[in-house]
Amino acid sequence: MREKRTPSGFLLKQRAFLKLYLITLTEQERLYGLKILDLLRQEFKPFGYRPNHSEVYKALHDLIEDGILKQVKMKKEGMKYQEVVYYRFTDEGYKKAQLYKRQLKAELDRCEALIRKAIKDNFG
Amino acid sequence: MREKRTPSGFLLKQRAFLKLYLITLTEQERLYGLKILDLLRQEFKPFGYRPNHSEVYKALHDLIEDGILKQVKMKKEGMKYQEVVYYRFTDEGYKKAQLYKRQLKAELDRCEALIRKAIKDNFG
Repeated sequence: MREKRTPSGFLLKQRAFLKLYLITLTEQERLYGLKILDLLRQEFKPFGYRPNHSEVYKALHDLIEDGILKQVKMKKEGMKYQEVVYYRFTDEGYKKAQLYKRQLKAELDRCEALIRKAIKDNFG
Repeated sequence: MREKRTPSGFLLKQRAFLKLYLITLTEQERLYGLKILDLLRQEFKPFGYRPNHSEVYKALHDLIEDGILKQVKMKKEGMKYQEVVYYRFTDEGYKKAQLYKRQLKAELDRCEALIRKAIKDNFG
């Protein structure tokens, strides 16, 4: 009866979910180093979800290591010495990001269908 | 910047999802020892989800340890020596199960809303 543990394909992993948001925030030029955690926590607060610091920054580092995002440092407006760190796509990154988003769209649709099935099956 | 790792309240856990199904299958008198895994795998196959043996049986054992379900052994129809194992609610179990289901309904609704938000936020 023993089986090897293989991914069972249950719901979307948190890391993938966060990477998707970080990509979209980059498209919208809204991804600033210090604001990311606050921004995401505020977004998800009404849904009872509070991402951890480490979860968010692991997702960000994944995207940098995958060659999708790069850090850009800029002087803060009107400030001589203060820098702001933000994120942009690398030259190759935008295309990779679009591919990732397409995969995630399919995955989100699958999860939505699975949850709706569970609601129907268990609560008629 | 260091934080204690607390549950972040992302999507529903697989264990809870499976417990919910096991409760509903018990209500429907469809929970037989040997059939559970096949039944669930068949149900979720179109959704790309294939629960592992250990995941399903841990969920079942949780329900037994929580005093919700009990094992019943019955002679197989027409067979003198073969037994079938199935599951029923304990005396206290039915009420506990209904409470659990109510919690899970709220949780599934929350997850559905979070996924729909992600679809809207990231795919317009």
